[in-house]
Parts: sequence; C-alpha cells; structure tokens
Amino acid sequence: MVKKIHIGVIGAGECSTEIYSIAYEVGCLVGQNEWVLVCGGLGGVMEGAAKGCFENGGITVGLLPGAEKHSANPFVTLAIPTGMGEARNVLVVRASDIVIAIAGGYGTLSEIGLALKIGKPVIGLGTWQNIEGIDYVETPQQAIERVRAYLKGKE
Amino acid sequence: MVKKIHIGVIGAGECSTEIYSIAYEVGCLVGQNEWVLVCGGLGGVMEGAAKGCFENGGITVGLLPGAEKHSANPFVTLAIPTGMGEARNVLVVRASDIVIAIAGGYGTLSEIGLALKIGKPVIGLGTWQNIEGIDYVETPQQAIERVRAYLKGKE
Amino acid sequence: MVKKIHIGVIGAGECSTEIYSIAYEVGCLVGQNEWVLVCGGLGGVMEGAAKGCFENGGITVGLLPGAEKHSANPFVTLAIPTGMGEARNVLVVRASDIVIAIAGGYGTLSEIGLALKIGKPVIGLGTWQNIEGIDYVETPQQAIERVRAYLKGKE
Amino acid sequence: MVKKIHIGVIGAGECSTEIYSIAYEVGCLVGQNEWVLVCGGLGGVMEGAAKGCFENGGITVGLLPGAEKHSANPFVTLAIPTGMGEARNVLVVRASDIVIAIAGGYGTLSEIGLALKIGKPVIGLGTWQNIEGIDYVETPQQAIERVRAYLKGKE
Repeated sequence: MVKKIHIGVIGAGECSTEIYSIAYEVGCLVGQNEWVLVCGGLGGVMEGAAKGCFENGGITVGLLPGAEKHSANPFVTLAIPTGMGEARNVLVVRASDIVIAIAGGYGTLSEIGLALKIGKPVIGLGTWQNIEGIDYVETPQQAIERVRAYLKGKE
Repeated sequence: MVKKIHIGVIGAGECSTEIYSIAYEVGCLVGQNEWVLVCGGLGGVMEGAAKGCFENGGITVGLLPGAEKHSANPFVTLAIPTGMGEARNVLVVRASDIVIAIAGGYGTLSEIGLALKIGKPVIGLGTWQNIEGIDYVETPQQAIERVRAYLKGKE
Repeated sequence: MVKKIHIGVIGAGECSTEIYSIAYEVGCLVGQNEWVLVCGGLGGVMEGAAKGCFENGGITVGLLPGAEKHSANPFVTLAIPTGMGEARNVLVVRASDIVIAIAGGYGTLSEIGLALKIGKPVIGLGTWQNIEGIDYVETPQQAIERVRAYLKGKE
Repeated sequence: MVKKIHIGVIGAGECSTEIYSIAYEVGCLVGQNEWVLVCGGLGGVMEGAAKGCFENGGITVGLLPGAEKHSANPFVTLAIPTGMGEARNVLVVRASDIVIAIAGGYGTLSEIGLALKIGKPVIGLGTWQNIEGIDYVETPQQAIERVRAYLKGKE
C-alpha cells in the first residue's frame, strides 16, 4: 500500500511562542513517524507543526486559502493553493485521517465542527473546551499516542 | 438598491417538533420582513425556517450539499445544488448577511465558527453555549429584533 | 411545485455593446418567461442578461467569485458571494437547469466543459465553435425556443 | 527553497491503452525530473501518469472528487479527497505550476479553460484542437522540453 497516513494539525495563523513550541513538537513526532503533515499552510500553529515535521524528514502539505503558492510558510514542501478562501478548511479536514487541534480561534472551531460532522477523530491540545467528541490530551506525546491508537488496525 | 437582505438560518437536518416550531417562527418573521431566507436546503431546522418564510411570501434559497435540486425541502423556491458536500456550509455563511443558529449539531458548529471567523453576526437560539461572539437570545422575536439592530444603518 | 426553473447565462465579464445587447435580449426573454436567471454576477454578458431579466420582473441570481456582495452588478437581486474564485464557475453550472453560452473567453470555455461533463444542456450563441454537444443557435429567440424544448416534459 | 514543482496531468478517467502509454511516459519523465505529479487521482490518463511517476520515485498527488481516499488509483501516494465533485478540477489546476493535457473529454476541456483563464501554461498532447493558448506538442519528450522551458528562470 503506497498511500500515506495524513495527520492534520489545525490551529490559528498567529500564536504565542509557547503554542508554537507545542505545534513544533507535534510536527516533530509526525515526521518521525513518517506520517504526512496536513495543514492550512500559513503561520502560527501551521508553521510550527510544518517546521517540526519538515526538520524530521517528513512531507508537509499546505492547503492554502489563497491562489498563490508563495503564501505558504517556508516548511511546506507541497503547497496547494486552493483560491477558495475559508472553504479550504473543509479540504484540510477531508485530507486528514486524524486531526489534532492546537489552541485556535474561530477557524479552528469550524474545522473541529467539520471533522466531527464527517466522522474524523479530533484530538485536542489546549483547544476549545467542552465539545463532546473531542479527545482531549495534555501533551504532544499523548496526542501521538492517541493517533497511534486510532491507526491501530487501520494500517 | 435592488439587492435583498439575506438572513441565514442554520441548524440540524433532523430536529424535535419543538425546535422545528422555533425555526418555523423565525422563518415566518423573515418572510414578513421581506428578507430572503438562506439555508442549507434540507430537513429539520432548515425546512421549518423555509416553510415559515415561504408561507409568508418570502424567497427561500437552499444551498444544497448534493448535486441535484430535488433533494431540497418542498419550501425552497431557489434550490442551488452545489455538489460540494460540507463545503456548502461555507457558502451558506457567505451568502448570509446575518446568521441565526437554532440548536444544531457539529455542522452548525462549523458554520458558527466560519461566520465568526469572517465577521458575520451570529444570533444564537438554544444553540452551542459559551462561544464568545454569539449573540444569544431566547425567542424568535428577540432574534428578529437583533437582526433589525444589526441592519440599522446598513439598509 | 414551488421550485423555479433556472436558466444560466454564461459569458465574459467584458464584452462589446453588440454582445451586451444579445445578452440583454436573452435576459428579457428569461424574465418574461418567469424563469430565474443564474449568472456569475459580474459585468459584460452577465450584466446584460441580468439587466434584461430584472427589467422584466425576473429574479436574478449572481454567484460571485469574491467574498463580498457589493461586487455584483446592479441588476442582481440575489447576490451570493462565494469567496471561491473560479470555483464559482462550477456553482453557476450546477445551479442552472440549462445553460446559454454567449460569446465568451476561457472562463466560459471552462463552464461549457463542466456543463457538458455533468449532462446539462448547453445552448451556444456566437460562442466557442466546433464543440460537440453544444446546441448552436443564431438568435436569442432561437435560444429560448431551445430552452422550451428542453423543458417540455420536465415542468 | 523546499517547495516542489508541481506538474499537473489532466485527461479522461477512461482511455485507450495507447493514450494510457503516453500518459505513463509523461509520468515517468515527471518522476525522473523529481517534480511532483498532480492529477485528479482516478483511472485512465490520471492512473497512467501516476504509475509512471511513482515507478520513478516521484511523489504523486491525487485530488479526488469523492470524499474517500480509497477511490484513488494505486499509484497515488498523497490522496486528497475533496468531496467537492467536479469543483476539484479547479483545485487540480490551481495546484499545478504547469498543466499537460492528454487527449481528454469534457472534464479536461473545463480544466484547460480554467488553466488558461488563470494564466497557467497548458501543454497539449493529442487533446482538444484549435484552442488558442494551448502549446501543442507531439510526444511526451516534447512536452517535458516545454515544461523545462517554462520553468527556466523560475527555479
């Protein structure tokens, strides 16, 4: 089977350095596991995660809201400009086998809603609270353990 | 100015008769105010609202997830099949000047997130709680009063 | 049956006054027949057709590439901003029961391809030549006669 | 610069073995040049091109019309289900730096129109004739030479 496993990381385009570090750690672990990182391709959480994955040899996909590749952060290897604005949120979710939500604002909330609607597992790290269906964890390592649990039997 | 005012009503495709009645009342008021009702075109809250608006002489737009018109509920006068699945949620929000969320599940949550992200007012009636930015009300009448307040100065 | 019949008019956003007149005549006939005019909402052929339909009491839907209503031409009564750029071409075609192509450039060519792909009748008026599947006519009146023929048995 | 060059190959989902071979050859050359192959992910021309690229060590992206990964052909390494039906044609074009059209039907015609509309080079191999703007060639090797010419100065 040549198809790769896609882990979506969703979160805001601007974030604190603390949140950036968490995203970076998640990205490192995604890369070390040889999974593909899928994200919205911009800054903040998306960049932190892409950086971590890229530095660990992973493929990083950025589904961009704009129409031009160059809007992607420097750690996106596969920049996919959609030109569809916020509708690209749907694509990020559909393109992911499992979604990890890190902190995040309204865009992240929309992606959480979409992911739960279409039945994708959502792992939450310091993200929107009290949403039934989110699998809340405390650390990047725990997030990856949950990913592994979801994948078991699928690979 | 020929352009009409579009009020989006979002909510689940299946709902209790109580929720259906609330959606129907909202729809009646939308129609009586000669606003256009925008919805996702399916059953439940979408149907209740479309019925109310249609019976009061209003135009009802249904932005459908599927590719065929006939999937629209019987009170949709303008059926717009998108063939884009859940991505039509983005279109419902974009096509609305103001959004009224009635109860709802994950799809509604995604639409709330999108609307708040792109800066559309969201009025909430028995919907997802504790989301900063939602303008929570208790009755259809209050929802319409809030719509009127948002429109003041825009018409 | 409350659902209306939707006639899509596709063509370039800029055009000669001659082409504009042809689009206007088509729009007039669409309005007189109480069909809904669906178009991309911008200038040129889209505006000519919307003007004709609007002046004859018809509903005119503009599925806009941008995210803002005000980009619609002044004869669009139902402005639906999609924020999806060229992907709105797909929506114009899907939202139409029958498509009339008037002159047009590459955007129109893409819509012709999409319409024929998904099995919608395409009537051509001075548009891209030698495309199998287009029902070529010479005048707005002939275009409307062809629409009527397609609708027979459907209404 | 970590971003890869994306070559889109567009063509019908069913084709003759002769056309399949041509697509396969194009795919081989894309892979040998270490470009990413972007396609619609299904059978026919898309599969031929993906096979060629994959067998030569290349990354193959399949932007699928459906909502499920498993609809991708076996040579797609990065399956991106869009759930957006024909609207994924827009994504294939946007995601490509340069498009090679091989034979093809109406879907391909729509992609050619979109690509020319948004200003992407389109190289044609036995595809729709007499469309101004297509750079017609006779062989896979010539197609790749044209790609190289377009890329010169961009890399």
